[in-house]
Amino acid sequence: MNANNKKQNTTGKAKAYAAKGVKPKSAKYFKHHKGAPAKSKTRTAQKQEQKPPIRIMFLGGLNEIGKNITLFECMNDIFILDCGMAFPDGDLLGVDLVIPDFSYIEENADRIKGIVITHGHEDHIGGLPFLLSRVKFPVYGTPLTIGLIENKLKEFNLDKHVSLNVVHAGDTVKLGCMKVELIHVNHSIPDSVGVAIHSPAGTIVHTGDFKIDCTPVDGGMIDLARFGELGSKGVLALLADSTNAERPGFTPTEQTVRASFERLFARAEKKRIIIATFASNISRIQQIIYCAEQTGRKVAFSGRSMINYVSVAKELGYIHIKEETVIDLDMIRRYSPEQIVLVTTGTQGEPMSALSRMAYSDHRKVEVGFGDFIIISANPIPGNEKAVGNVVNELLKKGCEVVHESMYEVHVSGHACREELKILHGLVKPKFFIPVHGEQKHLRKHADVALEMGMEHKNIFIGDIGNVVELNDSYLKQLPSIQAGKVLVDGLGVGDVGSIVLRDRKHLGQDGILIIVATLDTENGNIISGPDIVSRGFVYVRESEDLFDEVRSNVDDILYDCAYENVHDWTTIKNRVKDGVSKLIYDRTHRSPMILPIIMDV
Amino acid sequence: MNANNKKQNTTGKAKAYAAKGVKPKSAKYFKHHKGAPAKSKTRTAQKQEQKPPIRIMFLGGLNEIGKNITLFECMNDIFILDCGMAFPDGDLLGVDLVIPDFSYIEENADRIKGIVITHGHEDHIGGLPFLLSRVKFPVYGTPLTIGLIENKLKEFNLDKHVSLNVVHAGDTVKLGCMKVELIHVNHSIPDSVGVAIHSPAGTIVHTGDFKIDCTPVDGGMIDLARFGELGSKGVLALLADSTNAERPGFTPTEQTVRASFERLFARAEKKRIIIATFASNISRIQQIIYCAEQTGRKVAFSGRSMINYVSVAKELGYIHIKEETVIDLDMIRRYSPEQIVLVTTGTQGEPMSALSRMAYSDHRKVEVGFGDFIIISANPIPGNEKAVGNVVNELLKKGCEVVHESMYEVHVSGHACREELKILHGLVKPKFFIPVHGEQKHLRKHADVALEMGMEHKNIFIGDIGNVVELNDSYLKQLPSIQAGKVLVDGLGVGDVGSIVLRDRKHLGQDGILIIVATLDTENGNIISGPDIVSRGFVYVRESEDLFDEVRSNVDDILYDCAYENVHDWTTIKNRVKDGVSKLIYDRTHRSPMILPIIMDV
Repeated sequence: MNANNKKQNTTGKAKAYAAKGVKPKSAKYFKHHKGAPAKSKTRTAQKQEQKPPIRIMFLGGLNEIGKNITLFECMNDIFILDCGMAFPDGDLLGVDLVIPDFSYIEENADRIKGIVITHGHEDHIGGLPFLLSRVKFPVYGTPLTIGLIENKLKEFNLDKHVSLNVVHAGDTVKLGCMKVELIHVNHSIPDSVGVAIHSPAGTIVHTGDFKIDCTPVDGGMIDLARFGELGSKGVLALLADSTNAERPGFTPTEQTVRASFERLFARAEKKRIIIATFASNISRIQQIIYCAEQTGRKVAFSGRSMINYVSVAKELGYIHIKEETVIDLDMIRRYSPEQIVLVTTGTQGEPMSALSRMAYSDHRKVEVGFGDFIIISANPIPGNEKAVGNVVNELLKKGCEVVHESMYEVHVSGHACREELKILHGLVKPKFFIPVHGEQKHLRKHADVALEMGMEHKNIFIGDIGNVVELNDSYLKQLPSIQAGKVLVDGLGVGDVGSIVLRDRKHLGQDGILIIVATLDTENGNIISGPDIVSRGFVYVRESEDLFDEVRSNVDDILYDCAYENVHDWTTIKNRVKDGVSKLIYDRTHRSPMILPIIMDV
Repeated sequence: MNANNKKQNTTGKAKAYAAKGVKPKSAKYFKHHKGAPAKSKTRTAQKQEQKPPIRIMFLGGLNEIGKNITLFECMNDIFILDCGMAFPDGDLLGVDLVIPDFSYIEENADRIKGIVITHGHEDHIGGLPFLLSRVKFPVYGTPLTIGLIENKLKEFNLDKHVSLNVVHAGDTVKLGCMKVELIHVNHSIPDSVGVAIHSPAGTIVHTGDFKIDCTPVDGGMIDLARFGELGSKGVLALLADSTNAERPGFTPTEQTVRASFERLFARAEKKRIIIATFASNISRIQQIIYCAEQTGRKVAFSGRSMINYVSVAKELGYIHIKEETVIDLDMIRRYSPEQIVLVTTGTQGEPMSALSRMAYSDHRKVEVGFGDFIIISANPIPGNEKAVGNVVNELLKKGCEVVHESMYEVHVSGHACREELKILHGLVKPKFFIPVHGEQKHLRKHADVALEMGMEHKNIFIGDIGNVVELNDSYLKQLPSIQAGKVLVDGLGVGDVGSIVLRDRKHLGQDGILIIVATLDTENGNIISGPDIVSRGFVYVRESEDLFDEVRSNVDDILYDCAYENVHDWTTIKNRVKDGVSKLIYDRTHRSPMILPIIMDV
């Protein structure tokens, strides 16, 4: 179970790495990233042009938040950086999750040397089971990341079939002609890394998700020195996290939350404390545990993903908790309120989450009320504000005290704000810059940061998924795009829900359906049975009997006309019924339910 | 057309008012609100207890934002304050708008003396056409408010049948035993008022929507002096706007937006300026017009509600614009970009709004791109953040420059923040306080404001719709609730969409529908035609032929078994088909579409 046991194939910095990747075509290409970069002098220009270019292919993470996945291709070798999923927008009705389109990867599977994962969040690892169930590549990541991936692959019965490789910040993974160096960064989950890709074309830095936290709860400050060292040697391109590029200033350290928690624990006094946070925010959970132990409270965990993350993190030593501190959720009744801290999922108002169930009196084990002090330690992700507000309102109606939003600094972001981005740009000093991880507005704001730092407009590339850029020391150009997009997962189905199904779902959800069934005589088109009218999601049928009678007689007339006119083509008959009924319904109700005529023949 | 022509029945302060309301039962009850309030002395206690109480009934606006409507009942007389609508939450699929349940009003129509409207926003006037199409009462409001109501009633062909009465801030409307005094307040639409209800039970102050703006664009500062005067004389209860009760400090003056606009107009230089704002925000539109005239730009308006509001406001003198400034939307092509300001709807990312159409290249008259400088002069209402973000992203992708959110103070709220609320509480000094206009979290925060100001807990009532409170100088108590709720409007249907229809819409929208049709022999249950399987919103049918074949054969078996077992009860047969197919589909897909068996008999 301990992912550390799987540690293999890891080395110190840039040593020979026994990955199964093919060797680079020629050793000479490695000269460049080791020494200082070849500064452009007229005499060496010719030489530089012979440098093989590197291609960067974006299959996700541009013009969207989530499903981050990037391919790097150099001299016919490819490796994949991250393989995330995204949660569906509201218009993707009934869709459980969204994964990248893997067509390009499947078509080029023989050239892919491996997958490097920067950290264990769903938007970086969530696509892995879907990819690895089709094609197998070795996966590389830090201990916690690999632990979480292993846990996830188990659910898909894939854990025995995939080579999972534990590496550490500072290590380098050799993938074909590219060497991928892991660099420690701060983020809202421990063991996060950025990467420096040392390729024949030059060095490319990809930050992964990051922030600069000089006093993090876990794992030490981001390795700014290494980013600076790389910058001094020369970096061909920087790809960096744009999530917070709209926010000025500096993201506060995770430690500020600790101080808030301490104040709030004191204020809660004799009340039970319930804290909702992201299950993956191990550092946040660690701080809650410290506060609980300090005040003599027991800690119980609620929510499937919370229990999952905590158990992996505990096992791997990323969460420190005394054995006697943690209690099972079933045990909380045995303690008085002031002895309990309950850590739960549900910061986003998700209807099935533990906190929502508590708010709507639907939780099997926890009932909330006047004796509860509830802290929502997260901000609503855009789109979830209303749902979160509703949960807060319900908790307040039950008499709970609720602390939410930025009222008390009970949450800090895991992503760098503008001043942090500037520091990174200033250290890495790349020739080219590609903002990643963000919607258009984030990418543009991040490009503005680069411009403010003195970069030229022409050296910045704002891309989209499917885009391919080719670059080396002398140019960056866009190549024809590759296939990329959203593949929708609904239940067991991967990709079987598309635009037509979604359009129908939307129509059905907005206006309902009206089904007209009739059995006709194949010979002469005479009505043998029906027409029957059945509706769902349209109107209260009992209160609309007149309307339904009118529809029935209208259909009767149309079918009679068809028989009379010798129209026996079922499609034509159906279209005439559909048009007639649509018009009638719209006239009477100003609504447009889906009209579905079904003709049976005997 | 000029609503001022309708001015009638208005008087100076508290003079006899020729409304059709019945006279108060006894003149003595008017003593109290004229002079100083009867301060509680032991000797007069007996006397005070004989004061008739006043009842306040909430039909909307508590635990929700929108559909504000409150009833005041004293000595058998009732009047209605505001009659708003609400926009549907995301879970009210396909619903166009939400209005209050008017049952209580209809049942007590003979006792209702009239309706007073505080201002012309949809959440205060939007329910009127639906109420007035059932029962008629005289409506009272300030000129702009009545102008907007008249416009709205025209759409429903009701304008000729309703008595619309123009009154002004400072006027008093006599409605039965109650005299309703209008008090000028600031808000995001001109001509807004709060009310002081002078009743036999005492004086009740209701702020309506308000903020304190010492330098408003239009209409002068809120009449704080009058609130203070009422407070000195003694106010029985205060009902006040809680919308911004969570926000600390003071809402900035509308003038700050002017300064921002001036800076942005300068920055826009040679670009076309497009500004999205709320159609009802007349002051905002006025400021845009001033800036346009200052910089020699023409102004065009886009969006149906924008054109409606502007035309009413212009006609009544609430918008000042030079004849030569305004141009038709069709004319904008004749001018160069730097000569144009386009004022449009669509601040909330509504799919059918003008700005969204521009963003998604779906506007018939306006195409946007590199030459456009777009300002979104509003904040997203909770729940709309994602939609607004999407519109911004699309505009950026088209090359537009976009200024949104609080980046440049291009929007200020129309509602009072905590410090303003404190000023109002301090002036009015009510005996009882009822926070209104807000969700639970807003109402609670507003109650906290009252507590901070020294009010006793027991004198604060946090209510819900349907609640009835009775109060006079000596007590406030809750009475049994009356019928209240949400009536859903979908197309022409009012109230014919309820929980069952919505539940079906949700199910259909999430999972689609699978319809199974078979024609059976009435006699023996043998299959005459079918079973046919039709699905919508479930899966791509062409890629799922095997699954459909399996379903068909499964239904075949079930129908055969039923015939064999002599089961001829259609309901039983349908249930067996439904259960069998549900199970099969779930096993194969882990999805649960609506299963709808239809049996025809011959």
